[in-house]
Order: sequence, then structure tokens, then C-alpha cells
Amino acid sequence: MSIEARFTRLGTDNAPGQEVRQHTSGIDALLGGEVLAGRAVDFSHGDLNAHEPTPGSFEFFSAGVALGGQQAYTEYRGDIGIREQVAAHLAAFTGAPVDARDGLIITPGTQGALFLAMAATVSRGVKVAIVQPDYFANRKLVEFFEGEMVPVPLAYVSADESHAGVDLARLEEAFRSGAKVFLFSNPNNPAGVIYSATEIARISALAGEYGVTVVADQLYSRLLYTGASYTHLRAQMRDASHVVTIMGPSKTESLSGYRLGVAFGAPEIIARMEKVQAIVSLRAAGYSQAVLRCWFREPTGWLEDRIRRHQAIRDDLLRVLRGIDGAFVRTPQAGSYLFPRLPALRMSGTDFVKALRIQAGVVVTPGIEFSPHAGNSVRLNFSQDHSAALAAVERLAALVERYRA
Amino acid sequence: MSIEARFTRLGTDNAPGQEVRQHTSGIDALLGGEVLAGRAVDFSHGDLNAHEPTPGSFEFFSAGVALGGQQAYTEYRGDIGIREQVAAHLAAFTGAPVDARDGLIITPGTQGALFLAMAATVSRGVKVAIVQPDYFANRKLVEFFEGEMVPVPLAYVSADESHAGVDLARLEEAFRSGAKVFLFSNPNNPAGVIYSATEIARISALAGEYGVTVVADQLYSRLLYTGASYTHLRAQMRDASHVVTIMGPSKTESLSGYRLGVAFGAPEIIARMEKVQAIVSLRAAGYSQAVLRCWFREPTGWLEDRIRRHQAIRDDLLRVLRGIDGAFVRTPQAGSYLFPRLPALRMSGTDFVKALRIQAGVVVTPGIEFSPHAGNSVRLNFSQDHSAALAAVERLAALVERYRA
Repeated sequence: MSIEARFTRLGTDNAPGQEVRQHTSGIDALLGGEVLAGRAVDFSHGDLNAHEPTPGSFEFFSAGVALGGQQAYTEYRGDIGIREQVAAHLAAFTGAPVDARDGLIITPGTQGALFLAMAATVSRGVKVAIVQPDYFANRKLVEFFEGEMVPVPLAYVSADESHAGVDLARLEEAFRSGAKVFLFSNPNNPAGVIYSATEIARISALAGEYGVTVVADQLYSRLLYTGASYTHLRAQMRDASHVVTIMGPSKTESLSGYRLGVAFGAPEIIARMEKVQAIVSLRAAGYSQAVLRCWFREPTGWLEDRIRRHQAIRDDLLRVLRGIDGAFVRTPQAGSYLFPRLPALRMSGTDFVKALRIQAGVVVTPGIEFSPHAGNSVRLNFSQDHSAALAAVERLAALVERYRA
Repeated sequence: MSIEARFTRLGTDNAPGQEVRQHTSGIDALLGGEVLAGRAVDFSHGDLNAHEPTPGSFEFFSAGVALGGQQAYTEYRGDIGIREQVAAHLAAFTGAPVDARDGLIITPGTQGALFLAMAATVSRGVKVAIVQPDYFANRKLVEFFEGEMVPVPLAYVSADESHAGVDLARLEEAFRSGAKVFLFSNPNNPAGVIYSATEIARISALAGEYGVTVVADQLYSRLLYTGASYTHLRAQMRDASHVVTIMGPSKTESLSGYRLGVAFGAPEIIARMEKVQAIVSLRAAGYSQAVLRCWFREPTGWLEDRIRRHQAIRDDLLRVLRGIDGAFVRTPQAGSYLFPRLPALRMSGTDFVKALRIQAGVVVTPGIEFSPHAGNSVRLNFSQDHSAALAAVERLAALVERYRA
């Protein structure tokens, strides 16, 4: 692939947070009616002022700075003392051992972990199974490394609520046709659905049968709502040398400003990831790494309270979204994303997203970023101020009526 | 290139800070004599406890955390307010305008900037001119992106002290043979030499004539010793759309623990770098970015004092190294690296590096990391405690005598 082609396919204009760089010329002709007043809400990411970072996180950072050079210059894969502590927590959380020395790497955010995991497993022509819809960077990563994407549909709209809805027949077909890597998020970003125990068992069996490496992005696996049950793939795999799990404290714990993630699992893949990290950014910021010392050690009741408050927001927003005639939205079982499919409008999904920003002060991410088949959907990160989010979604509903086809 | 080949070539065992992961089996048979007692010194990187971070840096970080979401979720290329402030300082420092909106990106360290700059300009088969010796990651980056390396010798040993010694005829030959990118560090890492005004003028003219994109790694360009004069390439280029300059506060300012760098110059290249950053790590840690607010605004006399203290260490170490019969070391004009060429030994350079660590508590980086022709050299970052560094280099000299061929 020429370098020009590489960058044509790497567009970020609609990526969350990049709206400030968009040119909006052309949209004005499509707009009508008044601007809807109200507090602006940016649903492209969570609001850290509404849901604050883990108590004590800044103190751990300060202690890291006080340690000086030892904390600034860690191994590329991160400080061994911190890796040992985090490995113990992750083993307990996921139900399978984590090797602190050889099986875990600290990365600059989970984005960093995803990039390194793909760099370690995908090269030109390698087939990679990717779920549709799924986190928008997954597709871009496959393209960056010149892999070949094999889409696997997730029928989150029509599936029984007890399953995420991944098309397991299509997954096996992908593996049979030569896919060597399977990358997916669980809970799914953007749909918020959790893969059932049956689905995970089948993924595990198929990966074993076909020798596929699985990269499981479990960024949101701690923020589970009432009734949700979560199955960790890594505890199901017969052959642990073919799975890498990715997590981080950026979302549930609101620690995104420190840029921290971890990848853990197959030592051979982790070793490759470290080699890439050495030329990409050397290491996750040394001082930031110290913040991981508060991860999985939050004050009693803190996580439960965070979940309860998010669930309350979720339920209020669901009520408004379900009041839109012709809209569909599945109840997220985990995480803080809603992915409503809107009724037919007089403008494209991406134009509606621009209209929302200009006329309602509401920023959402267009569905097309997550799947070529999700042009009528938008993603909302509802980790927001409760009442501001509710009012913003009411404005969204009003604009849907204004532009209904 | 197969993925196995990619990783075979991406070795990091001898990279600075990774010594802890080395297997030392086999070396014991080569060793003799007593262990030399003394305070351990790790010359693979600077000692932040001896040369502390810029005064006020932590306070700027704390203010960033207090800002909350606004500081955590910046544009991928970094917060615009910080870019504006830094752009003004960099324009004054380098003597040419810097476009804060479109011509500057904040990255996770200068390593991050190098990676993104290479990703933006090098793809399979693109010829890249690389100086020998130069920063060890340069070669690895070209290989990672499957470019074709065209080496250009730097005759730092034989050159007149008024020049770095780059072979300009070989550089033109590289450009004439189709090199499209030229990547070099100035001051040179590891040799500490500064490219003269004449050399920079010629590089600039050649790049213009052959349409070559130049990536200038100027990480150490603020730490200039008595009598040194520095020419900024970007102020000399007729066509500014072909140069990207990289700097950062990790070294001179001891802010490595925050992982901060910047790249500035050609807007088209910076835009591509941001697209890659979006899938690599999203952004430099948001809170860390706030630390750039203290850059180029150090207390009066602080930089001068830092330079004076480093120059004093440099001069003491030079005296010891020049006392080794048959050794050569050029006086660094900038930065904090010494790159002595040692006399012939009874073991390879990399084995001597291991011996140094095991028998003298002294960590240095093998010359082979910087050039295939520098196997007898070692690199020392002398940003250390003055007396500990002096004693450590005396132990190095003693081991040279012990293992002299």
C-alpha cells in the first residue's frame, strides 16, 4: 500500500474529540429551525468532572514523582513492582494466572495496548476477524498493518437479550478461510452488550481448533449492571499461548488523563509488544504507571456506587430514546455506551451528527465509525452529569423529529 | 517481510534500561579478577535524582489534573492552548515561525514523535538516509516500516572539531540514488557533536534540490557547552513543507517521567502524524501535557547552571577516558553523551558491557546499537551525580586494562 493510500484510509475527522478540526461548510443548507438551548454535552467521551478519578489516584502519582528516576525510567514493559501488584489483581479478577514478569505489559492507554497487540500479530496479508459493529480503531489498525479484514456480524438488535448476538457460523467461516487473529471488545463498544458464557465458550473452542490468536479488549468489564454476568475468555482457553487480554483504568475509573492500559497473556506476544513499544514511545509515562497502584483497590463501595449512578443515567436515557418513534436501542449490560438506531432522517447520519452539534450543543459519534451497516446509529458515552445528559438526549429526540424523513 | 522477520530485527536486549531482562549465561567464563566496589551508576540514561526536573513542573501537572476533563481529553495532537504557548517558544528558539494550529503535535516523548514522523513518511521500499552512528531507534524505525536504509557516515573521529563530520558526498549520493527521507539527530546521539553551519546549509540545499523530507531530532539542542554554536535546519530550508523538527523536555529538563515530546513543521506531515497517533495511543497523556507550560520558561539562570554542572562532569570524565592508552573520545559540544572508542579488548564490545555491569556496577550502552562500525565504542549518558560518575568511569578504565588485548 502506498503511503498516500494508507493515510486516505486513516481518517479521523469523525473520531471522538476531533470535531474541533471539522470543516462544517455545506451543512448549513440542510439546517432549519431554531437552536435548542441547553448545557452542551460531549457524549464522545465521559465527563471526568461528573465522575471523578479514583480517590487517591493523584496521591499515588505524586508518590511516583517523589521516587524520581526509578519511577521515570522503568523497563519498557513497565515497573516490575507495579506489574506484580496489578498481575495479582487481574488474576483474581479474570480467574486465571497472570505472569507479572513475562506475561504483562503496561501501555499508554488501552489504545496503546491494542496498537501493540496488532503490531505483534498482524502483518501484510494476515486475515483478521473483526466484529461489526466494534470499536472504530480496530478496523484502522488492521488496515495500518495491511492485514485483511474479515467482518463478523454482531446481531445485537435481533439477538435474545441473553446473548451479545455474535454470528458464530460466520466466525467459524472466517477462521476456516484463514483468519489468524480475532479482535473483539467485550462488553462490545459501541453496543454495550456482553458475550454470553455460551458465546465465549464457542469462541474459545473455535480459536483452539483453528489456531487463532484472540485479542480481547475488556476495557469495560468492571462496570457491570444489575443482572449482568461476565465470562472471561482467558479463563476458558485451553491454550493460553493464543490469547491477549486488554484492560485499563481510563473509563470506569476516569483515569484517562494518565494514559494507562495493560495487556496480559501469551508471553511470546507480550515480548513482541515490548519490542514495538521500545520504538513507539519507550514506555507508558513512568510517573503515570504509579497510578496503577490504586487500581482494583478502590475504597469499599466506590465501584458499586459508580455502577449505581451510571445505571440510573442509563435508564433515564433509555426511556427518552425509546420514546422516539421508530428508534431501537438495546439495554447496555455493561460500560457506558448507548448505541441507538434512529429512524430514517432527511439527512445522512454524519450530517445529523453535525446538526446535533450545531443546533443542540450535543456531540455524539456517528455509527458509521463502528460499522458500515450502522449509518443510522449514533454512539453516546453516558458517563455524564445526569441531568445535563437527560436534557441533551431530549434535544436529540427533538432534532430527530425536526429532521424525520 | 514476515512478522517473524520483523521481530527478529527488532531486538531490544541491549537497549538502555533493558539490561534487567538479559540472560548473562556464558559471560562468566570470560570474566576474571575481583569485583570493583563502588556506587553503581547507570549511564544508559540520566540520573533524575542528581539533576532534578524543572522547578515548578509538578505544580503545572497538578494544575492540569485540577482542570479535569478538559485537560484529560485534548485533541489527539494536544491541547490548543499549550500548543500555542509552546509554538511561540519554539519559533523564538529555532528562528522560524511555528504554526500552533496545524504545524505542531504533542507526542508521548520524542520517541513518540520519531515513530509518528517515520510512520508519516516511510512505507515499504522508501529509501531513508540514516547517519552512522546515530540514535539506535532510527534504524529500527526504518526496518519496522520496511523502508530501505541508506547509511551516511559521520566521521566524528577524524573530522575537524568545527564540523560534525557528516560525509556530504555520501549524503548527496544517497539522495541521488532515490532516498526520500533523511533522519538525523543534531547534536548527534551518541557522539555529542553539532553539525556546523556549513553542514546544515549543505543538507538544506541538497534536500531542496532532491525533494527530500528531513526529520531533524534536536532533542539536545538546548544543552550547549562553552563555545558551541548551533544552526537550526528549519530556519535554513527554502521549502518548509519538507522538514519536521523534533524536540522534548525529557533530557536537559529531566522531565522524562511525564513522556513528552513535540514535532513541528510541515502541516501535511503533522496531520498524518496525528492520524497515526489516533490509533497508537490517542494522545500524549493529557495531564502530562500541562507540564509543557513550564518549558522554555525556567527560572533565570537555571539552564545556565544545568549546563555548567554538566560541562564540569564532562570535562572530568574526558580526562579519565583520555588517560586510557589507545582510547579516543571526542569532546561533546552539546547534550550529555560521551562515546569513547576503546582500545582492542580480549572480548567483544557487548561482552565488555556485560562485564562492566557485573564486575563494576557500571551500565553503559554498546556502540553496536548506534552503528555496525562502532563495536569498540560505548555510550555514556553523563547526566549523573558528579563524583559517582567519576568513580564509575575510573572503574571502567580499570576494566579496560584488565581485559586489554
